[in-house]
Amino acid sequence: MAAAPKILVLNGPNLNLLGEREPEIYGRDTLETIGKACRKRGRELGLAVDFRQSNHEGELVTWIQEARTGHAGIIVNAAGYTTTSVVLLDALLAARLPVIEVHLSNIFRREAFRQESLVSLAATGVICGLGSTGYLLALDAMARLIGTEKET
Amino acid sequence: MAAAPKILVLNGPNLNLLGEREPEIYGRDTLETIGKACRKRGRELGLAVDFRQSNHEGELVTWIQEARTGHAGIIVNAAGYTTTSVVLLDALLAARLPVIEVHLSNIFRREAFRQESLVSLAATGVICGLGSTGYLLALDAMARLIGTEKET
Amino acid sequence: MAAAPKILVLNGPNLNLLGEREPEIYGRDTLETIGKACRKRGRELGLAVDFRQSNHEGELVTWIQEARTGHAGIIVNAAGYTTTSVVLLDALLAARLPVIEVHLSNIFRREAFRQESLVSLAATGVICGLGSTGYLLALDAMARLIGTEKET
Amino acid sequence: MAAAPKILVLNGPNLNLLGEREPEIYGRDTLETIGKACRKRGRELGLAVDFRQSNHEGELVTWIQEARTGHAGIIVNAAGYTTTSVVLLDALLAARLPVIEVHLSNIFRREAFRQESLVSLAATGVICGLGSTGYLLALDAMARLIGTEKET
Amino acid sequence: MAAAPKILVLNGPNLNLLGEREPEIYGRDTLETIGKACRKRGRELGLAVDFRQSNHEGELVTWIQEARTGHAGIIVNAAGYTTTSVVLLDALLAARLPVIEVHLSNIFRREAFRQESLVSLAATGVICGLGSTGYLLALDAMARLIGTEKET
Amino acid sequence: MAAAPKILVLNGPNLNLLGEREPEIYGRDTLETIGKACRKRGRELGLAVDFRQSNHEGELVTWIQEARTGHAGIIVNAAGYTTTSVVLLDALLAARLPVIEVHLSNIFRREAFRQESLVSLAATGVICGLGSTGYLLALDAMARLIGTEKET
Amino acid sequence: MAAAPKILVLNGPNLNLLGEREPEIYGRDTLETIGKACRKRGRELGLAVDFRQSNHEGELVTWIQEARTGHAGIIVNAAGYTTTSVVLLDALLAARLPVIEVHLSNIFRREAFRQESLVSLAATGVICGLGSTGYLLALDAMARLIGTEKET
Amino acid sequence: MAAAPKILVLNGPNLNLLGEREPEIYGRDTLETIGKACRKRGRELGLAVDFRQSNHEGELVTWIQEARTGHAGIIVNAAGYTTTSVVLLDALLAARLPVIEVHLSNIFRREAFRQESLVSLAATGVICGLGSTGYLLALDAMARLIGTEKET
Amino acid sequence: MAAAPKILVLNGPNLNLLGEREPEIYGRDTLETIGKACRKRGRELGLAVDFRQSNHEGELVTWIQEARTGHAGIIVNAAGYTTTSVVLLDALLAARLPVIEVHLSNIFRREAFRQESLVSLAATGVICGLGSTGYLLALDAMARLIGTEKET
Amino acid sequence: MAAAPKILVLNGPNLNLLGEREPEIYGRDTLETIGKACRKRGRELGLAVDFRQSNHEGELVTWIQEARTGHAGIIVNAAGYTTTSVVLLDALLAARLPVIEVHLSNIFRREAFRQESLVSLAATGVICGLGSTGYLLALDAMARLIGTEKET
Amino acid sequence: MAAAPKILVLNGPNLNLLGEREPEIYGRDTLETIGKACRKRGRELGLAVDFRQSNHEGELVTWIQEARTGHAGIIVNAAGYTTTSVVLLDALLAARLPVIEVHLSNIFRREAFRQESLVSLAATGVICGLGSTGYLLALDAMARLIGTEKET
Amino acid sequence: MAAAPKILVLNGPNLNLLGEREPEIYGRDTLETIGKACRKRGRELGLAVDFRQSNHEGELVTWIQEARTGHAGIIVNAAGYTTTSVVLLDALLAARLPVIEVHLSNIFRREAFRQESLVSLAATGVICGLGSTGYLLALDAMARLIGTEKET
Repeated sequence: MAAAPKILVLNGPNLNLLGEREPEIYGRDTLETIGKACRKRGRELGLAVDFRQSNHEGELVTWIQEARTGHAGIIVNAAGYTTTSVVLLDALLAARLPVIEVHLSNIFRREAFRQESLVSLAATGVICGLGSTGYLLALDAMARLIGTEKET
Repeated sequence: MAAAPKILVLNGPNLNLLGEREPEIYGRDTLETIGKACRKRGRELGLAVDFRQSNHEGELVTWIQEARTGHAGIIVNAAGYTTTSVVLLDALLAARLPVIEVHLSNIFRREAFRQESLVSLAATGVICGLGSTGYLLALDAMARLIGTEKET
Repeated sequence: MAAAPKILVLNGPNLNLLGEREPEIYGRDTLETIGKACRKRGRELGLAVDFRQSNHEGELVTWIQEARTGHAGIIVNAAGYTTTSVVLLDALLAARLPVIEVHLSNIFRREAFRQESLVSLAATGVICGLGSTGYLLALDAMARLIGTEKET
Repeated sequence: MAAAPKILVLNGPNLNLLGEREPEIYGRDTLETIGKACRKRGRELGLAVDFRQSNHEGELVTWIQEARTGHAGIIVNAAGYTTTSVVLLDALLAARLPVIEVHLSNIFRREAFRQESLVSLAATGVICGLGSTGYLLALDAMARLIGTEKET
Repeated sequence: MAAAPKILVLNGPNLNLLGEREPEIYGRDTLETIGKACRKRGRELGLAVDFRQSNHEGELVTWIQEARTGHAGIIVNAAGYTTTSVVLLDALLAARLPVIEVHLSNIFRREAFRQESLVSLAATGVICGLGSTGYLLALDAMARLIGTEKET
Repeated sequence: MAAAPKILVLNGPNLNLLGEREPEIYGRDTLETIGKACRKRGRELGLAVDFRQSNHEGELVTWIQEARTGHAGIIVNAAGYTTTSVVLLDALLAARLPVIEVHLSNIFRREAFRQESLVSLAATGVICGLGSTGYLLALDAMARLIGTEKET
Repeated sequence: MAAAPKILVLNGPNLNLLGEREPEIYGRDTLETIGKACRKRGRELGLAVDFRQSNHEGELVTWIQEARTGHAGIIVNAAGYTTTSVVLLDALLAARLPVIEVHLSNIFRREAFRQESLVSLAATGVICGLGSTGYLLALDAMARLIGTEKET
Repeated sequence: MAAAPKILVLNGPNLNLLGEREPEIYGRDTLETIGKACRKRGRELGLAVDFRQSNHEGELVTWIQEARTGHAGIIVNAAGYTTTSVVLLDALLAARLPVIEVHLSNIFRREAFRQESLVSLAATGVICGLGSTGYLLALDAMARLIGTEKET
Repeated sequence: MAAAPKILVLNGPNLNLLGEREPEIYGRDTLETIGKACRKRGRELGLAVDFRQSNHEGELVTWIQEARTGHAGIIVNAAGYTTTSVVLLDALLAARLPVIEVHLSNIFRREAFRQESLVSLAATGVICGLGSTGYLLALDAMARLIGTEKET
Repeated sequence: MAAAPKILVLNGPNLNLLGEREPEIYGRDTLETIGKACRKRGRELGLAVDFRQSNHEGELVTWIQEARTGHAGIIVNAAGYTTTSVVLLDALLAARLPVIEVHLSNIFRREAFRQESLVSLAATGVICGLGSTGYLLALDAMARLIGTEKET
Repeated sequence: MAAAPKILVLNGPNLNLLGEREPEIYGRDTLETIGKACRKRGRELGLAVDFRQSNHEGELVTWIQEARTGHAGIIVNAAGYTTTSVVLLDALLAARLPVIEVHLSNIFRREAFRQESLVSLAATGVICGLGSTGYLLALDAMARLIGTEKET
Repeated sequence: MAAAPKILVLNGPNLNLLGEREPEIYGRDTLETIGKACRKRGRELGLAVDFRQSNHEGELVTWIQEARTGHAGIIVNAAGYTTTSVVLLDALLAARLPVIEVHLSNIFRREAFRQESLVSLAATGVICGLGSTGYLLALDAMARLIGTEKET
């Protein structure tokens, strides 16, 4: 039996504080809870979810570079790097994998400096404003994109 | 038995041409196919999907106004009105219903005049770039927002 | 006895929801109440008030075009079309009638996209932020502009 | 019998030249005529009109500060200070009184540097383009705002 | 004998007022006169001219959509929708027909908000400033584009 | 018999390379071919076509200056000088002759720096995107403007 | 013998410090020296020079207003008010006198916020960068404008 | 014994209202209280504090000019003149004294028009957002700058 | 006896070079000297100063995250990250501690790209341009903010 | 006896049309008249005036280059090249001579594209809006700058 | 034996002054010295260097046009035309030859108007800030691009 | 014999993927190949090449800081940090060494966000668009800058 395709779910800086950081904006789920839900949904979809977080731009870049060979897709919530990191954009472009961008809050209703996403330039799709549900929807969409989901 | 909550799925101008209009951008599904898939997914989620399209800004506004009393949520692909219609924005704000915005293509990778969404200012969440799958994900998210989905 | 001059009082999209739509911004008067008050004040001023609302840009344009021959002035609250509709502006310019622009809220304290009025370019005067009273003041001013008001 | 509420009607720089200064823009009424008409209308509305003019930004600020205790509302035509004076804006904000802004001409049809009013940020309402009539309408509106006007 | 190819000549809002609307800008020809001249020139060029006007954006969109199957080309004077209507642009792009844009006045010498044409992004060519003659030149050019004109 | 009115058809820098320079943008006609066609069409319209090209801004200016006395109109394709040359604009304004601006390609669909035409500020009309046909249409329009064309 | 026409030479804030204030920019002449030289040149030209300085915007405005009746022209160095004072601009426009603007330094080579002069909009001419000589040249030009200078 | 160096502490318009003006932004200390605290801290630091307030730009300028000879430093809270007064900036530059700018609130978190300080261009240092404490810190820093503070 | 509250004093990239890096801008104190002075002043104020420097954005973020539980306040000189790091801003916002921003130089007099501080959006107060003294003033202010300083 | 210093008076494109080109803007003096007046004034001031005009940017550059060795100063009216020619600016900077810029009209009251002068960056002083008198004033100022004028 | 490929080395306006023109920016080498060094390096690389300078935009264009047939590559220092000349850009694009752009100074550290190069849009590579060495490096790079350099 | 001067050749994030990352933009050479070629060319020039790559901004900063004492120059391809990293710029400015910036592609023909280099503000020269050859040219130029190259 073939191994389940691996999906890298990448969480950027400060997301390790989820649940206690400005919960009126980011919700009350912790990152651990979200990771657990992602892995569960991944199993249902036939995907192996590789769920990580880092505060270091360089580490995020390195993980994306490594995903180029062993992973089938990337789901990324770049948090504070979303609008400023040409470096993450370049890494995602180089990966040549399907990319889905996720944000917990609706970035279009927030401060101007949170709205022009560079990461979006490398993404197939974007999901935002739907809280931790957005991660699960991204996994559903990824399963379709890489063809593991059985048509319903 | 309580009636299924009604969800208005609103399609803006030119979406009636889906499938033949620039398929390299908008995909090959027709609007009819998408409507059928939405209604099917709605039934699975316990939602009655009310799927419509109009080229008339005024008609879209009127439908949103009417949804204020009989519907439980709105999913909207405002197409060409997305970035220019203060009128649609005002109607959505007045509706005080959960709103999810959908776009077939990733608007962040297109022309500048397609990127600053006014509709987003009234939306809880935004899903774009995932083709017709985006509609189904929006229904999934809507079911969670209004509480008809059974927790998994 | 000469007929009272007719004044077109034009209300744009979503104003039919007045009273229940974001009352903290737009006040609690319904459009019907405002219309009644306008007609009453009109009678006092010797004006026949023709009070209408539409969500359709094209219908608003057509009404303005028709007013060119039978009416003596136009009071317009273009609502969501205020800042974007070159079409309404052109119709008002073509009408060559006195125009007074009214807004219920003070648009200068709201979002940037509500502030640059195109309609103002065709207006003699602008009254905003004074709620439904603004309509009555506009009628008073119109009476002066077209000379029906007796000097006090 | 209670004293009539006092309304400060404030006129900014160069308005003392009204009637002879560019009458094609500002009309032919002198400031004295307007003041007389305001006081007359005030008496009809049960308001004591305190009508002043100054070319000095500091003096205008001081008058607004003094109005904080003895007056019930402020009507202000800040003229050349409208778009540049943070100082007047701050004084009006500190006054915590109802403020109505008046301009003789329709500032939206004039040079760009006359259009972005700072004063508007402290105003309940704005009336412009209606010549000296605008002052009288502002008094009418003020009477309603502070409740001296008998409902008609 | 083959039927003459049909050309849709589309006139946007307020163009029904031509001849009396600001004639110093738009000339003294009525739309009826222009339509007659277009049909005459069409016959000379072997083209069937389908000449229409609407104030409704949605109706203009629907006409363009319908032209996709039965017409050979579109000549469009979008008037007030020229610079704001993404919706018309999308309809024209979807039509995949030759499009020639016409304006009666030279839009480059008018107000800034009349200058950035969205419609131009879907047009093969643009003709402006030449009054009603521009329509006839557009028909000449269209005949060449679709090959009905005999080489001279 | 009166001499035919002279029309200066002015071609700016690099247009001498037409036919071999980026033919996918500018077409395959050489400037010589276009000149020949212009002269032929001129004869049909009763116009003497004076067809020139220069890479030198100063020379173009001098030709326009000279045309002030002996010519009846100017058709100008300023090529690379279109958006930057205040000098050409000034010469055309000083000429006080009818001016029609021509561009082979639709400049509105090209790079931003090719879109804001200074020359247009001196032109009666603009024709672009119609290839070498644009020159002939410009001659037709010029004939009408100066009254040599017999009404059809 | 007719009295010499009076010319108001107006000096704005901080110019009373000339000679010691940043002499590398403003030169070493004191305002008193410049005033003396102006009066001398005025006598040669048949002009009575009325030379003043104030740090108060309101006082400058009042002086300009007073000049409307008794003076024949205004030479103004508005110093720090040059770019920000709509109030001075309005006073100068209302004066309807010939105005020449003078600056000691070349404002075009200084900080951006010193470059966009509002005062220029009311000036016939501008002279800058020529130090105190600029005042004398302005007097020469004023004499020509009002016709006191004998042709040489 | 040498006299204590004099420090001018300058307070701009509306600061005389401190304590009652928008206390949620500006705190509850009155200007009198702050002045008293400044003089006390001055005595501890060996500085004579000259504490003033004016609503008049011209008066503020004159005070700064006078400080050039008798004072050792200037602490300035220019309030509403901070971002617009080239005149205050010029006076401070001409003073050639150490200048420390103070703001009660953090101007970087307020409206855009309060953020670009012109005064800062003449200041050695800036302290903001620390309420009335900011004045005392400014005195501490000034003592160091002019060398009266004993090293600790 | 209660332990002294801990204050994190955070120094961003390149500040380890202080004393030798462009001393005409940043002064001649080394970071070690500043740290020593801070600890000494901390002891006088009853604060335990935790003084750190890092060139790594991710490490700075992690330190701020850790400070959320054990520290009472943060003083931050983000150096080159001041204007670009949304990530640092988010960490500071999440910390929900009093934050004072310090800069050695007056950033308002430097290059434009050094002036728009993102960090300021999370800061109570900002002190800049006062060299290493700024750190000590920040400690004084912090002591007041968290109430360890005895009122004088 | 020493030869009179030579002053190059440079006139840019289209100035050869002076007197007939838009006389309501540029006046009715021909360039020849101005040249004659300049030479006359030059003789009075002890200056040899070298008065030239060209439509060619390259020729103007070459003349400025040649002036570097034999001339004592340059007066330049760059006309249409004023705002666009980096090349003229570079030539003037390289000349290292006193430069005075002249414009017949007040460029600050004209179209925006005529206002940002590049030439000013190389000029000691600027004189505009004073018609042909401006040339004579420039000569007066030049005489002072190079010391030929006897002090009065 | 095949003739050496010809390389056009094009020098724009004012470069004929090199060595004496602002040597602190442009260095002390004369253009003649640079030309000699280029020819020498060309011989070493098997390239015939055709080294020219002109102050005339039109002449530069003509030389580029002529190079289309006989030359193998173009090295261009467009000097003052770099940022403004669409005409040179068009000529270079039409040439369809390898182009290397050279600047003596680092244009990115100079005035804003020297930084946005239009010429770069037609260049394979850009070398700047390395003085006359930049020309030699450009020749080295050109030799590689056209394959005359022996691999080392 | 003196040791060869050490040159730090610094490669920023994602450059470790060279050869497989978007080879149509960045070429097919791997970073290893380029490093080898640089060391070889270094030996020929008498330079010891210290060739490194990192994805971590902080690590790049630290390497630049360390180079301040032991190295003679820095060649830097900052990749994705080029336009956003004030931190790298500060490190390079602090190093006070000759810096040459290299880019494989011509950044001026790419997306806008890749064009405004901050790094350039610290560079003597810039070489871009010449692929891996650019590194070798940078070494040649560096040898000249630090004087190890024998004059040819």
